[in-house]
Amino acid sequence: MIKKNAPAIIVTGIILILAAAVIGLLFYIKNLAPQTRGIQPLVEVALMEPDSSKWGQNFPNQYATYLMTATNNTRTTYGGSEPFSKLEADPRLLTLFGGYSFSIEYNEERGHANALTDVRAIARVNETTPGTCYSCKSSNNPSLWDEMGMAAYDATLFSELGAHITNPIGCANCHDAETMALVVTNPALEAGLEAQGLDWTTFSRQQMRTVVCANCHVEYYFEGDGKFLTFPWANGTNIDNIADYYEEDGFTDWTHPDSGTAMVKMQHPEYEMYTSDSTHYMAGVACADCHMPYTRDGSAKFSSHNVMSPLLNAEAACGACHTDVEYVTGRVAVIQALSYKTLIATEDALVSCIEAIKAAKAAGASDAALAEARALHREAQLRWDFVAAENSMGFHNPEEVLRTLALATDMARQAEISAMQAMP
Amino acid sequence: MIKKNAPAIIVTGIILILAAAVIGLLFYIKNLAPQTRGIQPLVEVALMEPDSSKWGQNFPNQYATYLMTATNNTRTTYGGSEPFSKLEADPRLLTLFGGYSFSIEYNEERGHANALTDVRAIARVNETTPGTCYSCKSSNNPSLWDEMGMAAYDATLFSELGAHITNPIGCANCHDAETMALVVTNPALEAGLEAQGLDWTTFSRQQMRTVVCANCHVEYYFEGDGKFLTFPWANGTNIDNIADYYEEDGFTDWTHPDSGTAMVKMQHPEYEMYTSDSTHYMAGVACADCHMPYTRDGSAKFSSHNVMSPLLNAEAACGACHTDVEYVTGRVAVIQALSYKTLIATEDALVSCIEAIKAAKAAGASDAALAEARALHREAQLRWDFVAAENSMGFHNPEEVLRTLALATDMARQAEISAMQAMP
Repeated sequence: MIKKNAPAIIVTGIILILAAAVIGLLFYIKNLAPQTRGIQPLVEVALMEPDSSKWGQNFPNQYATYLMTATNNTRTTYGGSEPFSKLEADPRLLTLFGGYSFSIEYNEERGHANALTDVRAIARVNETTPGTCYSCKSSNNPSLWDEMGMAAYDATLFSELGAHITNPIGCANCHDAETMALVVTNPALEAGLEAQGLDWTTFSRQQMRTVVCANCHVEYYFEGDGKFLTFPWANGTNIDNIADYYEEDGFTDWTHPDSGTAMVKMQHPEYEMYTSDSTHYMAGVACADCHMPYTRDGSAKFSSHNVMSPLLNAEAACGACHTDVEYVTGRVAVIQALSYKTLIATEDALVSCIEAIKAAKAAGASDAALAEARALHREAQLRWDFVAAENSMGFHNPEEVLRTLALATDMARQAEISAMQAMP
Repeated sequence: MIKKNAPAIIVTGIILILAAAVIGLLFYIKNLAPQTRGIQPLVEVALMEPDSSKWGQNFPNQYATYLMTATNNTRTTYGGSEPFSKLEADPRLLTLFGGYSFSIEYNEERGHANALTDVRAIARVNETTPGTCYSCKSSNNPSLWDEMGMAAYDATLFSELGAHITNPIGCANCHDAETMALVVTNPALEAGLEAQGLDWTTFSRQQMRTVVCANCHVEYYFEGDGKFLTFPWANGTNIDNIADYYEEDGFTDWTHPDSGTAMVKMQHPEYEMYTSDSTHYMAGVACADCHMPYTRDGSAKFSSHNVMSPLLNAEAACGACHTDVEYVTGRVAVIQALSYKTLIATEDALVSCIEAIKAAKAAGASDAALAEARALHREAQLRWDFVAAENSMGFHNPEEVLRTLALATDMARQAEISAMQAMP
């Protein structure tokens, strides 16, 4: 019985061996082909394409969530995306920013998709406003910087540049259209990293999930008459490094009319505050982990592009790492409450310091006699502002925030003492 | 063949059924007997037995690790168990504690087993020192408090009470000898909890693993002529609650000779600092989790009684919850470094404030004119001391530590300003 079937078995064996070889070769050939991201694009998107809706055809989930930033105007206890007036909420700011445009209007920002509408509606904008102010407001920027160069872009007036700016912040601000990799698109960011000896093209993807936010969420200033967008990072990125940079550079945003102090306004240094040895940063957590948590649409897992306060999405934002989300939001509440109280105490110290210098000046104190008080006022206020302008009410880096406020209050009170001693 | 063995099978079946019944009954009887802790004591230990070596016969692992506290005199960056002089390490303390015994001698404490030796060697102790100073130094206390009552204990002089104090801190300070349950033994702790409407007998075991540390690691004062040991907790246990308590009570440890301020010295408020909404406390972590981590001897798992800085035992102390111990100790280093820097800035502000009040007084400023400056000095220094006397250099509660230091610095500088304004 066995011998009778021998030829059939041999034939079957040969067929099986050949089939295995064919399957193996197919796998080999597949691996020789270029790697793709698993999803073939539906449409071709040009490099630095400003129109996010085109990218959206290939990435409907990311685009759909991005569009939500237009309407997610929800307020949290201390921030969120409702455009309330910070000046009405805290009238001390009228004194602190006295003589500067931020005492005219200073509103809480809305989501990414509103950036262009909102920058054009700012009352601070006038006929001398430089085009540089569009640097963080539009997905037209990467292609404009590429075509014009950043120096020409910055030297153009806001009113003139506007014709070329047609889209709010979008896909092109952070992605390479060909590979969808995260990229530094703002030349000022590249320069700021280079000034520290850093090359972003060597960064890991997880590092880039923080660094691309620094395309905008940073402290910056306009260098020289060309209003050249510059990040003050040559000494490092914590507040003491930045204060030293401005001290060496002698940069001034405006002179405070009451105290006569040469002041520096801080912008929105979320990146610097977060990366100054914060607990989450040291643990390897990226901005996108909390502000753009992974979410699902059916079987598709994607990073939500509805960028907002994690407090409005705590289950997804915090719950990816923390098992007890209620505990975590409770911690946020404690940290923000005491940061707020400490921040206001620093403001009170700054208001007193401004009044003391003003009084000494009115009594006839010389500029030489007031030099120390003014130097302390400048250093105190830029440190306070580094915390105040940073949108997390302490949470991005509680220890750094509180030690900075402690130092700022100390400096403001020392300025007050120095002004009293300068009284003729 | 099958039929032939039938009787044998029946017999075997009956034997098996009977054996199962016997085993079942034995288990039933075992459960009827009183529950034990699994280990029968080798020796009987009297309730409140002061001699820890007797308890040690029943609990050799706990006792062996407790004995290690006699010799674990290792220094950490900011603390540890080496009895270095705090006054030599930081001469600002000579000014801050001017006129008070803590400017004569102020040493880092050693481990539990050295408590009695070390308290007797303190240069601050003299013929008027009350017996109350033994309250946290000996396992004789629970039985003495039980026999004498705390009022009589406290009213006895240190020199007289000494004859009854034969053992350092030990088992009886925290355990019930019969059940080995954790217990509040210090009547002042029981009273302090009651003042807040709390009854420790209702606490969970995990709560008790923090609360028993408050038998000693707290802020306290000696109330009245009887030097009655009292915890200032009636308003709550954070520093603002405690400051309010002392404000209402009018208590004073000493009058500062330079500033003329009625001062309060803080002791070692580790319990209050840790439980003021710290991140670890809110997460349900007890003191013992970090300072007495579970360890093993063969198959026996026990809580190490070699109480010390978790930094000297980070793998066991932090590793029980945190997977990346290197990250955790890195965070501790960051937090302690900036807490230290902020603490020193507060000390500098306090020294300036003392000098300013002294100068105003020397220039003839009246007590009425200096009242505000002195009130601010008192409030500033007790807040600073709440942080300085608390043995963790910020780590027990970084946010509370830093916001307290920010407030203390602000108050000290305001005291300085007020003294300048009081100048005749």
